[in-house]
Amino acid sequence: MPGNSFGTRFSITTFGESHGKAIGVIVDGMPPSIPVDTAFIQRELDRRRPGQSSVTTPRNERDRVEILSGLFEGVSTGTPVAMIIANSDQKSVAYDEYRKIYRPGHADFTYIQKYGLRDHRGGGRSSGRETAARVAAGALAKQVLKRSGIRVQAWTLEAAGVRCETRDPAFVENNPMRACDPAAAEQMFAAVSALAAEGNSVGGIVECTATGLPAGLGEPVFDKLDARIASAMLSIGSVKGIEFGAGFAVAGMTGTENNDQMDERGFLSNNAGGVLGGLSTGEPLLFRIPVKPTPSISLPQSTLDSGGEQVKIEVKGRHDPCICPRIVPVVEAMTAIVILDFLLGRETGIFPAHSS
Amino acid sequence: MPGNSFGTRFSITTFGESHGKAIGVIVDGMPPSIPVDTAFIQRELDRRRPGQSSVTTPRNERDRVEILSGLFEGVSTGTPVAMIIANSDQKSVAYDEYRKIYRPGHADFTYIQKYGLRDHRGGGRSSGRETAARVAAGALAKQVLKRSGIRVQAWTLEAAGVRCETRDPAFVENNPMRACDPAAAEQMFAAVSALAAEGNSVGGIVECTATGLPAGLGEPVFDKLDARIASAMLSIGSVKGIEFGAGFAVAGMTGTENNDQMDERGFLSNNAGGVLGGLSTGEPLLFRIPVKPTPSISLPQSTLDSGGEQVKIEVKGRHDPCICPRIVPVVEAMTAIVILDFLLGRETGIFPAHSS
Amino acid sequence: MPGNSFGTRFSITTFGESHGKAIGVIVDGMPPSIPVDTAFIQRELDRRRPGQSSVTTPRNERDRVEILSGLFEGVSTGTPVAMIIANSDQKSVAYDEYRKIYRPGHADFTYIQKYGLRDHRGGGRSSGRETAARVAAGALAKQVLKRSGIRVQAWTLEAAGVRCETRDPAFVENNPMRACDPAAAEQMFAAVSALAAEGNSVGGIVECTATGLPAGLGEPVFDKLDARIASAMLSIGSVKGIEFGAGFAVAGMTGTENNDQMDERGFLSNNAGGVLGGLSTGEPLLFRIPVKPTPSISLPQSTLDSGGEQVKIEVKGRHDPCICPRIVPVVEAMTAIVILDFLLGRETGIFPAHSS
Amino acid sequence: MPGNSFGTRFSITTFGESHGKAIGVIVDGMPPSIPVDTAFIQRELDRRRPGQSSVTTPRNERDRVEILSGLFEGVSTGTPVAMIIANSDQKSVAYDEYRKIYRPGHADFTYIQKYGLRDHRGGGRSSGRETAARVAAGALAKQVLKRSGIRVQAWTLEAAGVRCETRDPAFVENNPMRACDPAAAEQMFAAVSALAAEGNSVGGIVECTATGLPAGLGEPVFDKLDARIASAMLSIGSVKGIEFGAGFAVAGMTGTENNDQMDERGFLSNNAGGVLGGLSTGEPLLFRIPVKPTPSISLPQSTLDSGGEQVKIEVKGRHDPCICPRIVPVVEAMTAIVILDFLLGRETGIFPAHSS
Repeated sequence: MPGNSFGTRFSITTFGESHGKAIGVIVDGMPPSIPVDTAFIQRELDRRRPGQSSVTTPRNERDRVEILSGLFEGVSTGTPVAMIIANSDQKSVAYDEYRKIYRPGHADFTYIQKYGLRDHRGGGRSSGRETAARVAAGALAKQVLKRSGIRVQAWTLEAAGVRCETRDPAFVENNPMRACDPAAAEQMFAAVSALAAEGNSVGGIVECTATGLPAGLGEPVFDKLDARIASAMLSIGSVKGIEFGAGFAVAGMTGTENNDQMDERGFLSNNAGGVLGGLSTGEPLLFRIPVKPTPSISLPQSTLDSGGEQVKIEVKGRHDPCICPRIVPVVEAMTAIVILDFLLGRETGIFPAHSS
Repeated sequence: MPGNSFGTRFSITTFGESHGKAIGVIVDGMPPSIPVDTAFIQRELDRRRPGQSSVTTPRNERDRVEILSGLFEGVSTGTPVAMIIANSDQKSVAYDEYRKIYRPGHADFTYIQKYGLRDHRGGGRSSGRETAARVAAGALAKQVLKRSGIRVQAWTLEAAGVRCETRDPAFVENNPMRACDPAAAEQMFAAVSALAAEGNSVGGIVECTATGLPAGLGEPVFDKLDARIASAMLSIGSVKGIEFGAGFAVAGMTGTENNDQMDERGFLSNNAGGVLGGLSTGEPLLFRIPVKPTPSISLPQSTLDSGGEQVKIEVKGRHDPCICPRIVPVVEAMTAIVILDFLLGRETGIFPAHSS
Repeated sequence: MPGNSFGTRFSITTFGESHGKAIGVIVDGMPPSIPVDTAFIQRELDRRRPGQSSVTTPRNERDRVEILSGLFEGVSTGTPVAMIIANSDQKSVAYDEYRKIYRPGHADFTYIQKYGLRDHRGGGRSSGRETAARVAAGALAKQVLKRSGIRVQAWTLEAAGVRCETRDPAFVENNPMRACDPAAAEQMFAAVSALAAEGNSVGGIVECTATGLPAGLGEPVFDKLDARIASAMLSIGSVKGIEFGAGFAVAGMTGTENNDQMDERGFLSNNAGGVLGGLSTGEPLLFRIPVKPTPSISLPQSTLDSGGEQVKIEVKGRHDPCICPRIVPVVEAMTAIVILDFLLGRETGIFPAHSS
Repeated sequence: MPGNSFGTRFSITTFGESHGKAIGVIVDGMPPSIPVDTAFIQRELDRRRPGQSSVTTPRNERDRVEILSGLFEGVSTGTPVAMIIANSDQKSVAYDEYRKIYRPGHADFTYIQKYGLRDHRGGGRSSGRETAARVAAGALAKQVLKRSGIRVQAWTLEAAGVRCETRDPAFVENNPMRACDPAAAEQMFAAVSALAAEGNSVGGIVECTATGLPAGLGEPVFDKLDARIASAMLSIGSVKGIEFGAGFAVAGMTGTENNDQMDERGFLSNNAGGVLGGLSTGEPLLFRIPVKPTPSISLPQSTLDSGGEQVKIEVKGRHDPCICPRIVPVVEAMTAIVILDFLLGRETGIFPAHSS
C-alpha cells in the first residue's frame, strides 16, 4: 500500500488536503453489531479542532463529521465506515506567497523532492489537519475497546521546560494545555503564552497510557505491540521519538534495577511499560513521545525558494505555539487503533456471537 | 502476515528457535543482477555472534550461513534468497529448569499468555538469536545500497552511565564495546566488566547514522521513513525507544532553535535527524535507541512459575552483561533493509520526470 | 486488510451501500503530475450506470462523481484521490419486504451467516452498485496507462446462447448489449428482451483484451499477472470463472497444438492469452469470464426467511435481464487497475539496466 | 510483498530453484498446540513427486522434507514452521543447451524480459518443482482443517479428450491418472500413453471439492472466497482458468435455471459452487481448472535464442505427458491454505482455548 493506510484488521485509510474540499477516512474492519455513538465521534474531533483556547490556532473550522456508510439503524454492519469532514475554512489565498518557498521545519522541501509538485496551501497533504480523520477513526476504535474494558488516555507531560510532577487524569481535560498536573499546567500555559507573544513556539512531551489490555496481545518478532505503537506515533507529524516504560533511562540501569520481578500479585514494577517480547504483560501500556515546536513561527528565518535562492521568511497567521494539547487526542486515537487491530486478531470470540 | 515478515519490496521473513535445528531468513525482493559477496555476509554475522570478547556471551556458535537459493553463478536472479544458519550449540538440557519458570525481563510469561505453550529452551523464538537471520538479510541490503552510495553505521554511544563525547566511526570496530570514542570505550569496558563480575548487567544507548540517501525517500502519512525505522528498531528485543535528531530534547526547544534553516549550501543544521514530513531531507539520517540491561542475570530475583507460585531464580550461564556491542550490527541491518525497501519503491523511469 | 482494498501500488479502497448516503473510493498510489480528465471519469461511470437501455435496469441515478482530494490545479499530486458518488435514488422502502427473506442467488443468506446482521436495502454492500466506485478508479488507471500506450477493452462475447462470430471493437459501444458482432448483437438483444418480458434473466460471457503491455510484467509464483487478473474478475459479483487464451479448450489440445512457437517476428500464436509463467509476453492479454443470469427475477422461487421457514418470493422491480453490458466497464476498470499496479512496480532506473 | 508469499493469517513464503541446493517454505501463522503428523506431510509430497508411474516424469528425487522450526515436542508452537526439501537430482549439465534458448510454452522468454538473467537449469524458479513446497505447507493446513471437519479433495476430471462420467472419490488414488471414474481412467491412461510415445503431451481438467465449510467464510468485495481460490489456482503453472459450480455453462442459463433455491433442508442445487457474494454457503465448494499440455515435448518446435535468432528445439529428457495427476495434490494444498487462511480470521474461537 502506498502509505495512506494503517492496520491490518481494523484498517484505516485517510485522504484529503488541508485546503481541498474535504478530508476523511475509510475504516475497514469495524466489527459488526456494535451500536455507534456518533456524538462521541464529534466530541473527539472537538478535542482536536483548532480554536479551543488562546494556545491553539484560531482557524475556525467546525470539523463536522459526516458518516457515509457502514452503519445501519445506528449499528455497525461490518462493512467499511466512511467518514468525511468538509474543509469549511479554505482561505487558500493566504498561502499564495508560500507556493514557491520551503517553510523551515515543514515538509515543503521533501514533498517537492518526492513528487515534483505539491498542493502548497496550508501544508496540503502533510498538514496536521489530516489527523482529524484519524481521530474520527479512533473514536470508533475507542467505542469497541470500551466493551472489552480497555481505556486509552494521553496528556501533556511537559512543555516549554515545565514538567508535571503528579498525574491527575481527571484534570487533563480541564486545562488548555491538557497537562496532568494542576500546578504545572498553569506554569506551562504562562510559558507557552509568553513565547507565543514573541511569535515563537515550543516543544513538549506527551505521555499515553492504556489500561485493561489482556496479557499476550501483539505478534512476535516484527509486528510487536511496541513496534506497531512506535510506528503509529512516528506517523504523527511533529513527533520525534518514543520511549516505553523506563525508556531512555534504561541506559544507566542495571539488570536488577530494570527487570520487573513478580510475586503472586503479579508484576512488582512496570519498567517495561507493559510490553515484554513485543507482547502485552497485562500491566498498563505506558509510553512518552517528544513533540517538536510548531515549525510555523512569525520570527524571520532563512530558507530557499523553489529556484534554489536563499530567502527570508516570516510565517504569518496565528499557529499553535505548542501543539501538545491538540496532539493528545491524536495519540489516543492511534493507540486505540493499534490495540483494537491486535485484539481483533486474537483467536477468541470477543464480540457478540452471531448465528453462524 | 502473522508477524515474522518485514518490508514490502525488499521483504524478509525469518524463522527458527534458538535451540531448534536452524534459524534462517527468506529475502524476497532482492534486485536481480547484483554480484553477491557471500564472505561479507559471513563477516557481518561474525560481528553479531556470541563469544567475541569478555563482554559478550561465550556461547560458542560458528553461525555459518548457507545460501540455498536466489543466486546463480554468484549473481542475484531476483528470486528469493534463502539463508540458513544451523544451531550447532544446542545444549538445551541446560534450560530444563526454566521450563516452568518465567525469567524476569524475558518473554516467557507473555508467550505463554499468547500461545498457551512455548519452546522454553534459551528463549525459543523470542531469543536474540533470531536477529542473526536479520543480519544476514541486512548484509544483502548493504551490498545493494553501497552501489547507490548509501552507507549505514551504528555504534554504542553510551553504556553503564559512560557516554561518548566524540564520534570516531573508524574506531568503532576496534573496541569490544563498539563505542565511538576511544576514551569513553575504556571506561565503558571497565564499568561493564565490573557489573558482569557481580553477576549483573547494564543498559546503554546505540546511535545509528545513514549517509548518501537521496532526498524525498519515504511515504507520507503512515509509512513515513522515521515511522518505519521506529518500527524496525522496536522490533529488536531489548530496545525500549527511539529518538531522531534532537529527539527528546525538542521538548525544551523553541521553534527558532529547532527549525533547520537553509541557505544555498543546504540545511544549516540537522535537528530533524534527516527526516521532514516522513521523507528524507538528504541530510544524514540520525537516530538513537535505548537498550535495556540484559535480563539474564545470576543475582537472585523473584518471579512466578507456571503454576502461579512465587519462586526465586538465579539465571545461570554466562550472558552478555551489556548487549549494545552485539546489537550494533542488528541495528545497521534493519536500517539498511528499511532504506532499501523505500529505495526500490522510488518513482523512477516510466512517468514524467520531475525536477528532483 | 479486511477485504475492501485491492492492489499494492495503485491501491483502491471502496465503501458504501446501495441505499446509504453515498458510495466511493480512495485511490492510493496515483502517480503525480498526471493531468486528470474528470469528464472521462464521468463518461466511464455513464457506461456502467443503470437505465441506459431497455435491457438495463431503469433505476434512475445520475451517478455524479465528486473528487474530494488528490488533484491540484487539474493535476494529480501523488496523494490519495477520494471520489464519492451520492445515492440519489434511495427508495429503500421498496425493499422492506426483503428484510427477512433471503433472495435466491443473492448474498443475503451468506451475509447474515458472516455478520449476523445486514443492510438489506437493495443488496447493501453486496450490491453491484459498489462497482461504480471501481469504474471511477479504473478511469484514473486508464488515463495513466494511455500514456504508456496500453489500452484495455471488453465486450459481450455471448449472451442468451448467442455467440459473436466476429470481433469488431469499434461496434461495441454502439449497441445496447455491448456485443462485438453486429449480427449477433441483434439476435442477443431480441433473445434477452424476450426473457425479460417473461420476468426471467439470462447469463453470458464477457471477453477482455489489453494491448500494449511490455513483456515481463507481473510477479512470479503467487502474484502472477493472470492470478491477479483472476482475483480481480472473481471479485465482481455474478462472475463465475475465467479463462485465458485457449482456456478450457487446452484440455483437449496436445503440446504441439498449444505451445506458442516463435520466429523472428515474435510469437506465432497466442494460446497463452498473453501470459507465460505469470508474466506478460507482450502479446495481447486475452481472457473471458462467464457471467451468471441476474438473480433478481419476478418469477416465483422458493427460499427461506430469517426464521428458517420456507417462503415463495417474486423479486419485484425492474432489473437488468442480462448484466453483461454493464459489467463490461467494470471488467475494463479492474483490468486497468491490475496492469497499472504491476507497471508501477517495474524495476526501472536505479539498478543495472538489462536487455529488455 | 514481491510475489513469493501467499495468505495473510496462514501465510506461506516459498523459495528455491529446481536445480539449486534446496527448495522450501516458511509457514507463518500455524496455530499453536496442534499435534503435527510429519509422516502425513511426507505422504502428501510423495503424491506430487516425479516417478510415480509411466505417465509421470522419472526424475528420481526422494523429496524428503526436513522441518527446521515451529514444532516443539511434536506440537506446533505458533511460530514459523520452516520446511526444506533438498534437491538431490541436480543434473544441471543436461540443461546447458537451453541456457540461451527460449523453450516454447515455458517462462524462459518472460523471465529474461523481467529480470535480464535467469537460472536456466530446469526452469529454475519457474519450475513446477516449486509446488512441492506448497504441498508441504498444504499438508499442515489439511491437518488443521481436519480438526474442524473440513476435507479437500481433487481429481482429474478430463484428460486427452476423455471425460469422467462418474465421480468416485475412493478410486482417485488408485489409478495413475488420479481420475475419478474407473472406466474413463483406463481410456485416459491409454490415450496419454500413446501421445507420450510420440513425444507429445496433452492437457486436461482437474476438479476440486471442499466439504465441511461453515457458511459465511470469506471477505466481501475484493477478498472473496472464490476470488482468493481463483488467485491460488492461477498461481499454479499450467493452469489456464477456473470455473465455479455451473461455471461457463451459466452463459446459456436463465435465472430460474441457475438460482439455487432453498427449502427447510437447505439449498436445492449448487450451481453457485458453494459461494454467494464471495462467502461460503455451507454447500460443497466446487471448482474446475483447465490444465495445459506439458510444454516440454521432444517433437521439433520453432523458437528464438537469446540473440533473437530463430532456432529449432527438441526438448529432451522424459517429461510428464499429462501433468494433471501431479497437479491434483497441489490444487488440494492451495485450496486447504485458502480455506484455513479465512477460517483463522473468523471472529470465533475455533482452536483449543488457552490460559489467557
